[in-house]
Order: sequence, then C-alpha cells, then structure tokens
Amino acid sequence: MQLLLATTNDGKIRELRKLFEGLDIEVLSLKDLEDKIEVEEDRQTFLENAIKKAKEYALYYNMPVIAEDSGLVIDALNGYPGVYSARFYNIEFGGKFDIEGLSKDEKNIQKVLKLMENERNRSARYVSVVVFYSPEGFGIFSEGVCEGEITDKPIGNMGFGYDPIFKPLGFDRTMAQLTVEEKNKISHRGKAFYKLKEKLTKLFS
Amino acid sequence: MQLLLATTNDGKIRELRKLFEGLDIEVLSLKDLEDKIEVEEDRQTFLENAIKKAKEYALYYNMPVIAEDSGLVIDALNGYPGVYSARFYNIEFGGKFDIEGLSKDEKNIQKVLKLMENERNRSARYVSVVVFYSPEGFGIFSEGVCEGEITDKPIGNMGFGYDPIFKPLGFDRTMAQLTVEEKNKISHRGKAFYKLKEKLTKLFS
Repeated sequence: MQLLLATTNDGKIRELRKLFEGLDIEVLSLKDLEDKIEVEEDRQTFLENAIKKAKEYALYYNMPVIAEDSGLVIDALNGYPGVYSARFYNIEFGGKFDIEGLSKDEKNIQKVLKLMENERNRSARYVSVVVFYSPEGFGIFSEGVCEGEITDKPIGNMGFGYDPIFKPLGFDRTMAQLTVEEKNKISHRGKAFYKLKEKLTKLFS
Repeated sequence: MQLLLATTNDGKIRELRKLFEGLDIEVLSLKDLEDKIEVEEDRQTFLENAIKKAKEYALYYNMPVIAEDSGLVIDALNGYPGVYSARFYNIEFGGKFDIEGLSKDEKNIQKVLKLMENERNRSARYVSVVVFYSPEGFGIFSEGVCEGEITDKPIGNMGFGYDPIFKPLGFDRTMAQLTVEEKNKISHRGKAFYKLKEKLTKLFS
C-alpha cells in the first residue's frame, strides 16, 4: 500500500517514517510529489485542521493519506499558541514578533518566553491529532497529549518547534534533549500515532 | 458495551437501532438520558458537525458515541440546503419560509419545491457522515452518498426529512415510499453506517 504523509516538515517526516518502520507500506511525503496543492489550515481545532488536510489530499491524489496537526497549549496564555503554533510569532495575539535573522521556530520560542516572563503557572501540553483518510470515504483519527511545562530559556538542539522550551512531565530534560526514539515514546505525536497504528494494523491485517 | 446515539431524531434512532441489531451493544439515545447538553451544529461541513457532536457528547457522558450529520445537497441550489437541511425554511438563503400550521419537514420541503420551480436540473444527493468517537481520544468516521433527483411534489409518507421529494437513482419511488429495510440498503445513512459497522466489528472483535 502507498500512503502519503501530508507534510513537508522534515521533523515530522523523520518521526513518522520511523514509526512506520516494519509495516509493509510505501510511505511518501508531499516532498516526493511534483504536483503540489496547498491546503489552508484555517480551522479552530487540531482535529478539524488534520481532517481537512487528510481529506483534501486524499481526494486530490487518490490515495490514503495521513495528516497531522499539533501544537503547544499553554494554560497561562489561554491555550495559545494552539492551532497557531507554527506561525505564533506572526499573529496579533501578544503582538507580532518578527525579529530579523531568527528562524521561524526561534521567533515563536522568543515570543512565548517573552509572554511567559514572570509567569508562575508554566503548565502546558503538546497536543497532536493524527488522521488517516481513505478516498473511499472513510477515516480514523487519534489524539495524543504530552503534559509538561515551559522552561525559562531554550535548552537542547534536537527535535523542532517548541521542543527547546518544553520539559515533559517526569523529565529533567527538554524535548529538544531527547533522541527521536525517546521522543516518540512519550510525545503527543508518538502517542497519537501508536494508537492509530494499532487500529490500522487491526483493520488492514 | 454501551454506546450513545447522539440524536433525538426519532427517524434516525429507528434507522440506527435497526442497523445495530445482532451486535452485543446496548444502544442508548439522547432520549434515554436525563442530564442533557446541547451541542451547536455550527460547522461548514457534515463531517465537522458530526465529529464535533460525537466528541463533545463522548467527553461529557464518558462513553463511546455515534453521531451523524446528514443533509440534502441540490446542484441547482449551489449545494443548499446542505448543512442547513434541518432548518432550511428558516435561513436567509432563498428567503425565510415560515408557514404557520406546517411541520418543520413540510416547511423545508415547500421551500425547496418553491426554489426548484421551473428548474430543469433536478439532480441532488443525500450525504451522511457517521462518526464513532471514544473518550480515550480515538475515532472513526465514514461517509455515504445516495444520488437522486428532486420530484415536483411530495409523494409517500414513510421516512422523514426530504424523503417525500427525493427519488433515489434507479428507483421509480421516492425515499418516503421505501420501508426502513429498503431505505437502509441504499440510503446515504445506510451506506455510511454499514462501512462504519464493518470497521467497528473488526476493531472490537
């Protein structure tokens, strides 16, 4: 079976490919396709964004698709960055934070640290929703959560996104100090994906 | 297993209970629960409405839920009534149509017939999305379509909704002239549900 991962994010491709090892599935990503379409992630929830992506890609390319939407939910920021996690630096909430010379990840992180300055409640969670959609009009989705807290400064250089400032519950390292294998075991995306993989394996065996 | 059907629509309860016959599942409906919550169906697609309902009910009642959203999509009306099917008579599109003494179904039907007067393209389809959501953060959904056309006048008194003016492709009777068994075999809801049931049976056996 061919399966399309609906992402161009190298970090996610790396993590998802790793999770598919050992299954008889040819995993493509949007990077392998020449004819590309854009799907706007304009919904209010991770689940709705992920389903919208999975369905539009599956119907366009006529193959099963796995799409993911995820983000960081910070209690003290009323749930922000949330569905805006990837472009948090550039939205109105909390003021735009477009510092020249920094990567998108760095700008997002700096904005969070600025808004969280002097904030004592540092609890947060990474949330991931993974969706499988088949063009026959059928889909499965699963949600994964990783509880943790926001650090005072970035630590570590593995992972991506907010990993350098997110310390998972029960760890004394940030997500950016974990190997891909360690991260997949406890991460939101890992949990969501393992649940989905278990169901897919049952359905397709 | 207890399963909640997230609907108070007698027609849907009747059809869904019939489809569950023979499975070891205790099927409840919102009518069996004393503590009721309202979930607003404010999304732009059947899929998003159904998922929103399933998830909110599942998390509130802490049990697996099956929710459905469905409607009539008429090509000559740019896809209307669509997600507004249940309250089409009362929306701005095409003018409000609140005739005293008629039931909601009758008002909706009269509005469609009025808007379709002299319209030669009568092609339409019933679309249904059925969603299973489990509070553990996992869900399945399936979509079913029944192609057909809009008649010139209501015929038949079985079924509900737009059934009296919807003639399924290949039939010379309207949906309102079919028995529940006949309807479940060819209907949008029947197709969506059978697909879902097949997957659920695999997952829970």
